[in-house]
Amino acid sequence: MSITVVGSVAYDSIETPAGRRERCLGGAATYFALAASFFCDVRVIAVVGEDFGAEQEGVFRAHNVDTRGIERAPGKSFFWEGSYLENLNEAKTHSTELNVFAAFEPKIPEAYRDSDFLFLANIDPVLQRRVREAMPGVKLVAGDTMNYWINDHRPALLEMLKGLDILLINDTETRVLGGNKNLVQAAKAVMAMGPRVLVVKHGEYGATLFHRSTPRSGSAEQTFRAPALPLEEVVDPTGAGDSFAGGFFGYLASQREITPGAFRRAMFYGSVMGSFAVERFGTERLEQLSRAQIDERFARFRELTHLD
Amino acid sequence: MSITVVGSVAYDSIETPAGRRERCLGGAATYFALAASFFCDVRVIAVVGEDFGAEQEGVFRAHNVDTRGIERAPGKSFFWEGSYLENLNEAKTHSTELNVFAAFEPKIPEAYRDSDFLFLANIDPVLQRRVREAMPGVKLVAGDTMNYWINDHRPALLEMLKGLDILLINDTETRVLGGNKNLVQAAKAVMAMGPRVLVVKHGEYGATLFHRSTPRSGSAEQTFRAPALPLEEVVDPTGAGDSFAGGFFGYLASQREITPGAFRRAMFYGSVMGSFAVERFGTERLEQLSRAQIDERFARFRELTHLD
Repeated sequence: MSITVVGSVAYDSIETPAGRRERCLGGAATYFALAASFFCDVRVIAVVGEDFGAEQEGVFRAHNVDTRGIERAPGKSFFWEGSYLENLNEAKTHSTELNVFAAFEPKIPEAYRDSDFLFLANIDPVLQRRVREAMPGVKLVAGDTMNYWINDHRPALLEMLKGLDILLINDTETRVLGGNKNLVQAAKAVMAMGPRVLVVKHGEYGATLFHRSTPRSGSAEQTFRAPALPLEEVVDPTGAGDSFAGGFFGYLASQREITPGAFRRAMFYGSVMGSFAVERFGTERLEQLSRAQIDERFARFRELTHLD
Repeated sequence: MSITVVGSVAYDSIETPAGRRERCLGGAATYFALAASFFCDVRVIAVVGEDFGAEQEGVFRAHNVDTRGIERAPGKSFFWEGSYLENLNEAKTHSTELNVFAAFEPKIPEAYRDSDFLFLANIDPVLQRRVREAMPGVKLVAGDTMNYWINDHRPALLEMLKGLDILLINDTETRVLGGNKNLVQAAKAVMAMGPRVLVVKHGEYGATLFHRSTPRSGSAEQTFRAPALPLEEVVDPTGAGDSFAGGFFGYLASQREITPGAFRRAMFYGSVMGSFAVERFGTERLEQLSRAQIDERFARFRELTHLD
């Protein structure tokens, strides 16, 4: 099956306790696409500037990611500069230059219209909603957002959420969006806004999947918690959440049927892809990964958490 | 098998978003003993004042906990007053009155000397060490500590740690004691101080067991992560960590052989007991628990985290 992802393709300058990198290839759609590409066909909708060249294009191509939806616009690509010197769990943003992204009008190539799944990475919820409405034929829609949209663009975000099957956000975002300090109660409030599945990412503690209970839902639709691997060194946390989303949604797209068991394995694959992403700067680790390494780590995650 | 636990038996006045309770029965040894009592024989060493009466004694008796080591001293029992109004994960201490605890000299009843396991709950490491040395015949020694001892009594703590097989502390304590922000590296530094097993409690995110690697250690001694149950309401977090320790160590004491599998199940039982403790104020929930309810929740924890 195939996934279309809409989101940012960008350059990042990143400083962490492990060092500094200037203008790495980054952006939520980039991490998502690379992570998902190990499981299914991926098609990207984004906009880049004149500074996006053959080398960057080659990173997508090497993973068979369809780049026909990456529009070239006059000017520079989206640029983000941040550091994690004090706290590896939270980036300190030094600079955000939207550049060509400021006027982004997602255009959906004809060839993308038969996509099975749609992922709306973290961008303006007005654009997320527009893309979702332009692709009525997709079977499953997942998306991400962030505190900026939750706090300052709530009405647009709430409209967008109505069109989502699955929302992936972190603990703080869940509590703020759901308006409740208790995670379970906040999760219920968020699912009442639209998504029937909510994946809450806990960073180094893994992630929890909540299902909206329905009159028909039984024990097969229980809450599920996936671990994260305790890592001896986190080189660069950038993109961990997007890589989680790529592994999670990519694995789901590789399944013939979306069973409760498929959701469970997808949570593990999400954690696995997030754990790889942080091992090197930017997309370096994802670029050099093999499916065998992914499955080996999947087995380690099982060993890490299973009783027998 | 039997466990001797040394630690505080106290009164707590607690305020949480769910309400307020005055002078509940509390103390680390109390929570530990009640939680462990569902798995094995438990014997308590502590000191209480003249305000400790038949009702409190009855709570221990109802769980077949041996109280012959609870010394009665002239004066009042240890008293703690705290609240969790802002943050359920961290108590704000309003008052600590050591009372009879200030001059606590643990005395070990003859009848306790054949104990198989020893648990040194969070008290002055000088006393922990003294009890450990007075019971050289025990097979396994576990213990707890807190930031106060880590920061202000480090030499005494380091001496005590040399006599421990298993240390149970939380994330922050591990990072401070190990002198490293990275949890895995901090855990290694802590295990180099003595304990061959370190259990790091993550509160609402569960707990991780680390084994000190030895030349002989293979894959069976890997890191293991146990979940916590996402709870819709946390009434009172007091004693969650001590209840975890009681479930963990009590389950180990119930096993004929301490295999890697026993450690894994013990981590789950620890999480289970912690999840019960927080459902009501003080020891209310532990007092009214049954082994069947414990095993039912154990099964839920498996369901919550296992792929199949």
